[in-house]
Amino acid sequence: MVSIDDVAKRAGVSTATVSRVLNGTGYVSEETEIKVLKAVKELGYVPHVSAKTLARKKIFSVAVVISQRIKELIQSDVGIFYKIILDAIENTAGIYKISLDILLLDEVLQGKHHKYDGYILVGSDASEEEIEKISKNGKVVLVDHYIDGLRIDSIVSDGYDGIFYITKKFIGSGFNRIIHIHGPLKYYGFRDRYNGYVTAMTKFGKLPITFEYDDLHEEIDSVLRRALRDGVPEVIICSNDPIAIRVLHKLQDWGYDVPGDVSIVGFDDIPAAEKEGLSTMRVQKVELGINAVKRINEILSKQSIHPYKQCIYTTYVKRNSSVI
Amino acid sequence: MVSIDDVAKRAGVSTATVSRVLNGTGYVSEETEIKVLKAVKELGYVPHVSAKTLARKKIFSVAVVISQRIKELIQSDVGIFYKIILDAIENTAGIYKISLDILLLDEVLQGKHHKYDGYILVGSDASEEEIEKISKNGKVVLVDHYIDGLRIDSIVSDGYDGIFYITKKFIGSGFNRIIHIHGPLKYYGFRDRYNGYVTAMTKFGKLPITFEYDDLHEEIDSVLRRALRDGVPEVIICSNDPIAIRVLHKLQDWGYDVPGDVSIVGFDDIPAAEKEGLSTMRVQKVELGINAVKRINEILSKQSIHPYKQCIYTTYVKRNSSVI
Repeated sequence: MVSIDDVAKRAGVSTATVSRVLNGTGYVSEETEIKVLKAVKELGYVPHVSAKTLARKKIFSVAVVISQRIKELIQSDVGIFYKIILDAIENTAGIYKISLDILLLDEVLQGKHHKYDGYILVGSDASEEEIEKISKNGKVVLVDHYIDGLRIDSIVSDGYDGIFYITKKFIGSGFNRIIHIHGPLKYYGFRDRYNGYVTAMTKFGKLPITFEYDDLHEEIDSVLRRALRDGVPEVIICSNDPIAIRVLHKLQDWGYDVPGDVSIVGFDDIPAAEKEGLSTMRVQKVELGINAVKRINEILSKQSIHPYKQCIYTTYVKRNSSVI
Repeated sequence: MVSIDDVAKRAGVSTATVSRVLNGTGYVSEETEIKVLKAVKELGYVPHVSAKTLARKKIFSVAVVISQRIKELIQSDVGIFYKIILDAIENTAGIYKISLDILLLDEVLQGKHHKYDGYILVGSDASEEEIEKISKNGKVVLVDHYIDGLRIDSIVSDGYDGIFYITKKFIGSGFNRIIHIHGPLKYYGFRDRYNGYVTAMTKFGKLPITFEYDDLHEEIDSVLRRALRDGVPEVIICSNDPIAIRVLHKLQDWGYDVPGDVSIVGFDDIPAAEKEGLSTMRVQKVELGINAVKRINEILSKQSIHPYKQCIYTTYVKRNSSVI
């Protein structure tokens, strides 16, 4: 039988770290988390799972479904967010006696594959009708996606809570001019984070000041010029890391001292954030993947069937772009 | 060893029903759910739990903490909502080797009790500072309560999703004049449901028409008169059952045919809703309790520590007060 020591050795970390990863404490870097889960998969290590899962002979078949867009993203650097989630799903599945295939959304919809016991849909490209169609074939868990009123199990990151947290943190430390630069509000994720900022500012008697930035149709210059018109803000909270990094670079080009003149905070914690020294709210991507596997296992083994949305709280990672 | 048949016999139901309750399908009445969980507790029946829990010698001590206000409510009919949650917690704890005490919030804050491994705080009376204080003594799970940005595990009912669902359902069936009568929006629960109504109406191109009703400071008459001024609505969606029942009685007093003239839908599914034949969105109270116990067990046995908010979807219960 494979022990936790074997996993630690293979991953080149301590057993305490393996244990932290498998227990979902998240106080390890994502890189390490991925390394540990990879070792778990390769060695076939089985940590604590339900007695029912251990006793179960049947292997559940689960399809991980992604869109063509996400498949292409994953092949570039931009898709690292989804790659981490997918890796976490792949490396955890064996623990729950789940066999996985990764399929394209269009092919699944066209009926090109046999039926699976369950489907984990990653990303927000599947429409309500498409999700309903797939849910006729097997149990569905959505990851990083939620549809109002559809009542399908979802595992998402709590953007509202994360941006509320960081806005409140700056307000509590005496900062006043805190602005928010966000992506188009037609997207659920941006809207959710926007609401977190506005709610926090309003709650503590500050005026919310927001600027929409659509990276496909405009340059960050014009947005930033508008944002600086009334003086330099003390804090700029951005609705994701790519926006924050553009803001950071542009302000440095213009001769501002970050974080001396202004603190900048992103959201997601993509690898570029670490490289750029960007403070950010980390979306727990590995947990999104692990919890999706746990949830589909619970549903398929009928341990807890009533559906819910699980909103995983984010974690603040302070780096050099902010003073607190 | 106690079998599922023993539980079924003691509860006076079929084994299939016992299995449905323990698997959280929720397609049984709350009365039956409570009966089954009571039998589970009395007989010490242990269904599928994690191998780690089975192997564990230690019994976790958990305090269920309620305010004086909720304690008093439970002694009257109005508090049945909390009583069901508390019963579900009590009857499930043994399965997870958890010993329970029910304590008053004020006493816990005054340090009148020894420390517990974990705390399940039921209801929304504990303030942010109070929750933070308690979380210094042990792990905390909130039930029917959530605090922005505090990042403490919460199990809540998804009011936004539930009201979105029912509003969309009526719109999809061709209804047009759908109004919302809600409690004071300073309360998170009412605001959450209000947002579900407004989002659904707006999404499908209908004008949201809302009326606030504060049952402590005004009569339903004046609110309803305002609501009827432009004609009788086709559907009245209320933000809880007590409001819906008052609306139902008053409209019947005034000679309206419910649901012939107007459909009325509540939220919560309290016992009075069944008695009055009120259609309503059922809050899964038993699941709120069971899932809180499961979650504190996971946290205490370090199976999944990263905190999240679990929003349990509601279920539509159609009775005689609505045509669909």
